[in-house]
Amino acid sequence: MTTTPAQIHRLPASAAPSGMLAELIERRIPGMSLEAPFYTSEEVFDLDVAEIFAKHWIFVATEAEIPEPGDYLTINIGPHSVILLRDDDEQVSALHNVCRHRGARILNEPAGSVGNLVCGYHHWTYSSDGSLLHADSQPADFDRSAFSLRTLAVRTVAGLVFVCLSNSPPQDFDAYAKRIEPYIAPHALARTKIAAQEDIIEDGNWKLVMENNRECYHCEGHPELSCSLFPTYGYEEGGLPPRLRPAYNRYLGADADLKLTSEANALPYARIEELRQGATGFRIQREPLDGAGESFSPDGKLVCTKLLGEFDEPRLGRLSMHLQPNAWFHFLSDHAVTFSVLPLAAGKTALRTTWLVHEDAVEGRDYDVQALKRVWHRTNAQDGTFVARAQLGISSPAYLPGPYAPNEYQVEDFVCWYINRLRAGTGAAGESGEEQ
Amino acid sequence: MTTTPAQIHRLPASAAPSGMLAELIERRIPGMSLEAPFYTSEEVFDLDVAEIFAKHWIFVATEAEIPEPGDYLTINIGPHSVILLRDDDEQVSALHNVCRHRGARILNEPAGSVGNLVCGYHHWTYSSDGSLLHADSQPADFDRSAFSLRTLAVRTVAGLVFVCLSNSPPQDFDAYAKRIEPYIAPHALARTKIAAQEDIIEDGNWKLVMENNRECYHCEGHPELSCSLFPTYGYEEGGLPPRLRPAYNRYLGADADLKLTSEANALPYARIEELRQGATGFRIQREPLDGAGESFSPDGKLVCTKLLGEFDEPRLGRLSMHLQPNAWFHFLSDHAVTFSVLPLAAGKTALRTTWLVHEDAVEGRDYDVQALKRVWHRTNAQDGTFVARAQLGISSPAYLPGPYAPNEYQVEDFVCWYINRLRAGTGAAGESGEEQ
Amino acid sequence: MTTTPAQIHRLPASAAPSGMLAELIERRIPGMSLEAPFYTSEEVFDLDVAEIFAKHWIFVATEAEIPEPGDYLTINIGPHSVILLRDDDEQVSALHNVCRHRGARILNEPAGSVGNLVCGYHHWTYSSDGSLLHADSQPADFDRSAFSLRTLAVRTVAGLVFVCLSNSPPQDFDAYAKRIEPYIAPHALARTKIAAQEDIIEDGNWKLVMENNRECYHCEGHPELSCSLFPTYGYEEGGLPPRLRPAYNRYLGADADLKLTSEANALPYARIEELRQGATGFRIQREPLDGAGESFSPDGKLVCTKLLGEFDEPRLGRLSMHLQPNAWFHFLSDHAVTFSVLPLAAGKTALRTTWLVHEDAVEGRDYDVQALKRVWHRTNAQDGTFVARAQLGISSPAYLPGPYAPNEYQVEDFVCWYINRLRAGTGAAGESGEEQ
Repeated sequence: MTTTPAQIHRLPASAAPSGMLAELIERRIPGMSLEAPFYTSEEVFDLDVAEIFAKHWIFVATEAEIPEPGDYLTINIGPHSVILLRDDDEQVSALHNVCRHRGARILNEPAGSVGNLVCGYHHWTYSSDGSLLHADSQPADFDRSAFSLRTLAVRTVAGLVFVCLSNSPPQDFDAYAKRIEPYIAPHALARTKIAAQEDIIEDGNWKLVMENNRECYHCEGHPELSCSLFPTYGYEEGGLPPRLRPAYNRYLGADADLKLTSEANALPYARIEELRQGATGFRIQREPLDGAGESFSPDGKLVCTKLLGEFDEPRLGRLSMHLQPNAWFHFLSDHAVTFSVLPLAAGKTALRTTWLVHEDAVEGRDYDVQALKRVWHRTNAQDGTFVARAQLGISSPAYLPGPYAPNEYQVEDFVCWYINRLRAGTGAAGESGEEQ
Repeated sequence: MTTTPAQIHRLPASAAPSGMLAELIERRIPGMSLEAPFYTSEEVFDLDVAEIFAKHWIFVATEAEIPEPGDYLTINIGPHSVILLRDDDEQVSALHNVCRHRGARILNEPAGSVGNLVCGYHHWTYSSDGSLLHADSQPADFDRSAFSLRTLAVRTVAGLVFVCLSNSPPQDFDAYAKRIEPYIAPHALARTKIAAQEDIIEDGNWKLVMENNRECYHCEGHPELSCSLFPTYGYEEGGLPPRLRPAYNRYLGADADLKLTSEANALPYARIEELRQGATGFRIQREPLDGAGESFSPDGKLVCTKLLGEFDEPRLGRLSMHLQPNAWFHFLSDHAVTFSVLPLAAGKTALRTTWLVHEDAVEGRDYDVQALKRVWHRTNAQDGTFVARAQLGISSPAYLPGPYAPNEYQVEDFVCWYINRLRAGTGAAGESGEEQ
Repeated sequence: MTTTPAQIHRLPASAAPSGMLAELIERRIPGMSLEAPFYTSEEVFDLDVAEIFAKHWIFVATEAEIPEPGDYLTINIGPHSVILLRDDDEQVSALHNVCRHRGARILNEPAGSVGNLVCGYHHWTYSSDGSLLHADSQPADFDRSAFSLRTLAVRTVAGLVFVCLSNSPPQDFDAYAKRIEPYIAPHALARTKIAAQEDIIEDGNWKLVMENNRECYHCEGHPELSCSLFPTYGYEEGGLPPRLRPAYNRYLGADADLKLTSEANALPYARIEELRQGATGFRIQREPLDGAGESFSPDGKLVCTKLLGEFDEPRLGRLSMHLQPNAWFHFLSDHAVTFSVLPLAAGKTALRTTWLVHEDAVEGRDYDVQALKRVWHRTNAQDGTFVARAQLGISSPAYLPGPYAPNEYQVEDFVCWYINRLRAGTGAAGESGEEQ
């Protein structure tokens, strides 16, 4: 993994935003992109880490990445380093990757397998629950129990792993989990394996990465993805440009088919869209794919012949989920792909993409890994270019916030959610986007 | 082009300097180099961008770089990215390179040719005057006229292109243009082409790059340039060191010859020197070259056999112009060379050097591009070393401002101009250097 | 030399720490590692440069590095560049490497030999005592005496060179010099030469580099060094873990032998340990080496067959000195090795290691340079890894100060000395660690 953690060289800011930040939050104009400092200022970046990434449930991995007891990942969330560990009870635990002796990072690889957690510096040894088992050369009155590794909240839902750095995680996550589980469970992530994983660093603020994900207005820039996604994404029927009418008719037919197929396979498909509300904003829906309608590929046909779970029907479209603040997902009949956005600095963001296939799928027989990755590998690179150009343009003092089009309503949803969360976290009044 | 824009990671400063900056400006001692923060502090850099580069006429290019309708350049001025475009009426226009939708940089190459300006992100399409011609998928009440590209002031004088980022550009530019045009016009830049262009990044503050340009006290460090420039540059006759007396006598003879030649060719030559005054400080003079007196070359002979404009006399010396805040120029009988200094960060500066020859000159027959560039290519590299050493030394807390010698009077002029402009821009009282 | 100076891009801070810094200094808990900003904040880094590195005696070199008149070194201490020069009287002088004209760095190589000091920019020429001998083109009333190079305090003790950037250097240095000289003098550094020198950049704060040096709790991570150092370093007999009992018995035997040998050779060996007190905290002791007891090597045998000074006894153990704030040393019968820690930025530190052998020792005959360097070359690299992991872990907001073990008492001594010096320098009340 090529991501590097943000180095914090600033004195810690107080939780409350400075006067200028408070003013920026206060004066945000609905329907318009944010003012430049939200994307370029390190002060806002610190605020985003403290208020967004340290107070919400953050999608960081899939359970399939740590299948066996002792398997671990290290994940950087801004300046935090978090250990995700499958413990001896096969549960996923999450610990801060900071030795309680003199602060050394304990695990220094992105992934691996361990027994106890042993700091390489002075060999302080912790169990997988963080208890300090052994520290050499201490005085008789040394109280080991006072120096456990700090833990953090961790939740798994249908094979997806979320952490929360706050001691009081958002309470709406239970409701969220309950609602999405029936959609995702049939894809049986518990019986998948990692076919591929890629980390890229985008030269832009994490919110630009998210905003870019939340609309298909730019999808002409994605020749590979355009074979699979209908270009009508985000439009209401009344607002369709005439040129998209044929595609829309094709979409309507595919969508009707998909509903029948979903019902025949007892798969939920209805859209739930609560992107602005509460702490855990999300959207989930089963939607048709263009072409053959089976998977992300030039002709819409499967990219893995071994289907997930108990599926025998390949034409299940894409079960897509958008999640605030940092993730999106596509679950198909033949594979799943997850995206996790992690902030590095005001102008640097890590994007991790993970492709999962059935645990019994065999590379070379059931799937070709290059073909499996092709659409999103290229789409990610194209999006990286868009994000970098946005970051550069916004860095000019000539930049002014501009209007979101109707088919960018999910960008507006994301921005409203973000501003609402800053206001909620910092005690500022008012909710953004209530007038819509 | 290898320059990269300054990434702005600071909350925008108010226009007025902070108390410490105001004090630094106030206490500047005439005749001495500036205090260290003027060269090393990012706060001063922001102030320089706002007060100097965003409020004055900045030389950025020659018309010959964009000869045809649709030809464009993108120029970074601090965090600004500016598009210079030859429009369909063959006029040069200047626009901010920032899409009015979500801020993406529109043109991402240093130069090229376009029809309309199309943002690659969501295909918002602008005409060459910045009008928004088309934005897909907008609601019926969308007012395109509210989202034109932001333009900025642009002026051309005798083939040189200047922009001003301010809405109220300095008003003394008309007078300046009127006075320099008769000097430069005979060199007929309208009928030149770009023979070569080089961009280098110097490891020093932009003011050190300018100060270095404004004296020949260091010209012993320029073996190639010393074949052409008299080492007596900047001296008054009474202050000449004895060792320079022979060179000075040689200079006097060459200067007398040049005056006769200039008069015979109806070329203005008299020095105008108003480097400290007003917003558009400048100096222009036709001066002799050493050796054969024709061009920048080891023996002073021509480096291009096809002369500029209607010239048939090669011994026209150098028509040299120094311009505040960021440029200098040499116009000769056989070529012209322009220099544009653009700030990147407190300790990083871009220098663009452009060599122009007659549009009918043929490489390999009339000129050899390596020979053409030789003197200034090497001189720039030598100057880059001097600037880097100055930046390093000034970064030491042991640095103290030191005295300018009499032959560095143009450095003092530059610094006085700079301090005056900061005072004028920020409302501080007093003018620097009035006592001289 | 690969070190680069810290570029100062901040407005100069006032000498007194800001409120937050004062609070951090005030609330330091004895026996615990420092809070994170001490290691990660650039504000603290600036304070450390101003209060620690600019106000104390800093070990920077050995006299053997500049044996001949005209020999010089340039040393970066934070943003300072210092010239160390052997002058015509064979004395070592120290000058700021900043021209008094326009601030250029005068000497731009890490080491070399010069006559007068000539700035390469405008050829201002200084004598080795800093007097300005010549500045061309000045007016008649130019007072050269006002523009000498700024000097700084320099001291040599038994062949070691110390500088102090302050005008009022700590006065306890005389007493320090008087006490250590009898220990070091027999090793006759005046008759040594540099066999090897290495500069590495560690990815951590300078205090982490020092703290790492001040304990052997982590020495299991040093397989090469563990052949020479007894693993009982830092333990009091009562606190020994049972597994170290055999090593401790071996140590006691070796120590008894060493005392006899030292007395037979009239070498002082007793420990002086005043690491917390005053400005010039230090510790010196002659201690046994494991194995053959002669030198740093896999079997403890000599790595140079030509012994230092007048020695004919190889089993002299290691005369080791720890010095606040930035150095440690080992003087053996066959070679000496010195370590100088110089800060580059909050998270970057230069470590220079120098190996000295008898001036008559011949490489290839008396010593093999790879074998000579082996133990500390590898140990430095291992320590660099530990320091980098500590810096990364401490950068996490989850980091909390942790407890030093009894065998880390010298780390606590270093931290108490550091906090005491900040308090003394900034006028804050109280001394740290008085309760111990």
